[in-house]
Amino acid sequence: MSSNSIKDGEFVLLYLKPRKTWLIKVKAGEKVHTHAGFIEHNSIIGKEYGSSIESSTGRAFRLLKPTIADFLMKFSRPTQVVYPKDLGIIAAWTGLSSGKIVIESGTGSGALTAFMANLVRPDGHVYTYEIREEFVDVAKKNLQKAGLLDYVTITKKDAKEGIDVDDADIAIIDVGDPWTLVEPFKKALKGSGMLAAISPTMNQAEKLTAELLEKGFVDVLSLELISRDLEARVGMTRPSMRMIGHTAYLTFARKGL
Amino acid sequence: MSSNSIKDGEFVLLYLKPRKTWLIKVKAGEKVHTHAGFIEHNSIIGKEYGSSIESSTGRAFRLLKPTIADFLMKFSRPTQVVYPKDLGIIAAWTGLSSGKIVIESGTGSGALTAFMANLVRPDGHVYTYEIREEFVDVAKKNLQKAGLLDYVTITKKDAKEGIDVDDADIAIIDVGDPWTLVEPFKKALKGSGMLAAISPTMNQAEKLTAELLEKGFVDVLSLELISRDLEARVGMTRPSMRMIGHTAYLTFARKGL
Amino acid sequence: MSSNSIKDGEFVLLYLKPRKTWLIKVKAGEKVHTHAGFIEHNSIIGKEYGSSIESSTGRAFRLLKPTIADFLMKFSRPTQVVYPKDLGIIAAWTGLSSGKIVIESGTGSGALTAFMANLVRPDGHVYTYEIREEFVDVAKKNLQKAGLLDYVTITKKDAKEGIDVDDADIAIIDVGDPWTLVEPFKKALKGSGMLAAISPTMNQAEKLTAELLEKGFVDVLSLELISRDLEARVGMTRPSMRMIGHTAYLTFARKGL
Amino acid sequence: MSSNSIKDGEFVLLYLKPRKTWLIKVKAGEKVHTHAGFIEHNSIIGKEYGSSIESSTGRAFRLLKPTIADFLMKFSRPTQVVYPKDLGIIAAWTGLSSGKIVIESGTGSGALTAFMANLVRPDGHVYTYEIREEFVDVAKKNLQKAGLLDYVTITKKDAKEGIDVDDADIAIIDVGDPWTLVEPFKKALKGSGMLAAISPTMNQAEKLTAELLEKGFVDVLSLELISRDLEARVGMTRPSMRMIGHTAYLTFARKGL
Repeated sequence: MSSNSIKDGEFVLLYLKPRKTWLIKVKAGEKVHTHAGFIEHNSIIGKEYGSSIESSTGRAFRLLKPTIADFLMKFSRPTQVVYPKDLGIIAAWTGLSSGKIVIESGTGSGALTAFMANLVRPDGHVYTYEIREEFVDVAKKNLQKAGLLDYVTITKKDAKEGIDVDDADIAIIDVGDPWTLVEPFKKALKGSGMLAAISPTMNQAEKLTAELLEKGFVDVLSLELISRDLEARVGMTRPSMRMIGHTAYLTFARKGL
Repeated sequence: MSSNSIKDGEFVLLYLKPRKTWLIKVKAGEKVHTHAGFIEHNSIIGKEYGSSIESSTGRAFRLLKPTIADFLMKFSRPTQVVYPKDLGIIAAWTGLSSGKIVIESGTGSGALTAFMANLVRPDGHVYTYEIREEFVDVAKKNLQKAGLLDYVTITKKDAKEGIDVDDADIAIIDVGDPWTLVEPFKKALKGSGMLAAISPTMNQAEKLTAELLEKGFVDVLSLELISRDLEARVGMTRPSMRMIGHTAYLTFARKGL
Repeated sequence: MSSNSIKDGEFVLLYLKPRKTWLIKVKAGEKVHTHAGFIEHNSIIGKEYGSSIESSTGRAFRLLKPTIADFLMKFSRPTQVVYPKDLGIIAAWTGLSSGKIVIESGTGSGALTAFMANLVRPDGHVYTYEIREEFVDVAKKNLQKAGLLDYVTITKKDAKEGIDVDDADIAIIDVGDPWTLVEPFKKALKGSGMLAAISPTMNQAEKLTAELLEKGFVDVLSLELISRDLEARVGMTRPSMRMIGHTAYLTFARKGL
Repeated sequence: MSSNSIKDGEFVLLYLKPRKTWLIKVKAGEKVHTHAGFIEHNSIIGKEYGSSIESSTGRAFRLLKPTIADFLMKFSRPTQVVYPKDLGIIAAWTGLSSGKIVIESGTGSGALTAFMANLVRPDGHVYTYEIREEFVDVAKKNLQKAGLLDYVTITKKDAKEGIDVDDADIAIIDVGDPWTLVEPFKKALKGSGMLAAISPTMNQAEKLTAELLEKGFVDVLSLELISRDLEARVGMTRPSMRMIGHTAYLTFARKGL
């Protein structure tokens, strides 16, 4: 079997058309049902990633290898999604990469956690704190599914009360009252360590910024990314008529001593 | 000396205020001159990252540990910069992470190359192609400086003529005629491999999209990210009055077989 | 009866909540039915604009005096709506105001026509050209309803073949092939007269711009307006999560001799 | 002389290239000096609007008839400019048109005042209130120059203390503490009358919105318009790289009784 052929037990993204996809774990003998017919898992095993397969009703599905973004989009999600645009700039700005030690609160569904774990692999680690029991469980299952649980420690705890990590490289705040975590996360960060926070409202960004400056963080800045789809079609190219208007403000800062 | 103290030979970002920073390589006996006075390197060695130092004129400079984004912003740059927002979403969308094999053309100043090399470390590799001799040299120096040259192979070659990599996970196109690289890069990609292209104009995105669909790529989409700074100040919060209006359209696709 | 009280035969906007409004012409003896109960027209007559009335099910409706924008939003609309943001900047940029002579093609549902007629009143006039019979009829009814038909002449004709107006102050192009109207509209405009065109795609704006420069127009520029709702709520203010991503590019130019 | 030829005493916009324009009042015997040479007014008189003239150094200047927007851009301006995009949507949303009675505070340099006066001509009127003596004088001169002073009454008064107009159709607030004018402007407005306010910060929009709802205004909404220039060039079309990031939030509401 070629190295790029689909094996029993692997995850496959069935792609019918944009935004019509199914993420399955291949298991010999099973079937996946969609509104466009069913597909036997046995018929998928051994096929090449990138090839097509016909469903019972004759519709062509593309067999894709899921990326981390595909996993995140399919996570069980009791909370708000974090969008690729926001994940990406957090990674680019904070320097998330293999070997980094990251602290995070809250964990939520674990999407941001998984994205970061995938980047700090194989030598780094994400320590994430979540106060709500049910989210801890959901996040664990999601991280397990994405194969990233080895790079993550989830602790059920209110991070405001202080955390047990020292010398973290990067701190991520994704809670409703982000300013309450500035002090405990400052303690846990290395000097010059990067902090990033996700705030849906301007008021959160405003209050957080004041607290960061008060606590001696430097290079404090906030921004938002607006993502616009372009419909690129020969002779008829234009931005899409519908778009997401706002996800969150992102605030970045570095720990001063 | 603490593990977070500055050592001879390390890079330090001297931060005076937003957008007023200097990236230096510490070397005992040297001096750095700025419009706000000079600083002796000897006085920096042994200080903690995150602490401050006074220049000869009494101005306080913060001693920061440069992130990959700081390095990119200070690269010698004969070409257009690629912005963190665009770098980030390329990473998030294509699944750039440790272990991935990436092909890229053109190299330009090596900024995108360096960003990707930093993410595929320690097990992946970036194979990048550049036709202009002078860019090859600049990129090599930049990657050397950022300590990332081990993870990159720069080849002086027109990638249109075909490249020698097989089974790449990710292909990046950053040239003026992106459609010309669709065929050679398709050959070099694994089935289901991700392609991302950077196009300043709508016409490039349009022509590229047509070629991607023609050549059997799937899940083809284009977007642009608009970054807006938020001036978060208590009781006076608002978006900045000036902003970058446009950098580039990003086109993403996956290789179908 | 006060001068601001509602009279038989007037138009009233029944406002239940944002985006839930009904535009009615008050007629003694009639009833208006909504999903939130019915209201007798007789109970509206004599009430003040700005006051409230209860429906049969006890829901409060506000009685508002419709503005021109309210009329446009309620026009029979076989074609795409033109948004207030785009209407507004066309007025501001071209100098639309009382006394101006305007030429337009196509008429469509007459929304832009009505907006302009309302601004050139009482001394100006809008000459509008439409090739599709059914649109001519819809536009006439809409303009009649808005009380603006006296300021408009609708002609069923392909404006490409030339029009009968001389010395127009302002020309408006809202057709799929805007470049075809540059020459006939140039003839109909005064020297230094303003032209504005509405183009959904960038290809239209591109081709139109080339033609305008070719035909000697000056001060040629294109732009688009992006409208973002702000949800202003104490302590929780943020942009809306959904928005219209794109309506049209607007191109402006002045006739050179 | 043709009806479209330039006469002594008229205003002419000399157009060299985008953003390089001079607004002059033609006066026989005078000269206008620019960095691209001088032009004798005598040589302009009798020329057609839309035609060109050569300066002393052989550069071609286009002779354009200034629109209201051209006048506003050339106003003496001790305060912040109000942009065409914002002027336009205020007009479109509030129904500004011939015959309307408008109240405004503050007057500032009179730019918004002039724009509105030009739209309510010949039967409407703008009553504008300004507390700073020096702005009253500047605004008067600007309105005089634009030929619109007959349609405006400028009063030096703090509008918070109440104003003398009844039954206004439209109220415009352009001050730093917009919430303080809600009550006096409500008194001066007709039932169902429209209010529009211009707020640079989100905190102003937030506090104003709370006050409008508290005082019984309905259909209260806020938005901002983002204007993006499109560089439309054959085969190289893209949004401009620089843009204005933010001007102001606009809040609209209607008076409930």
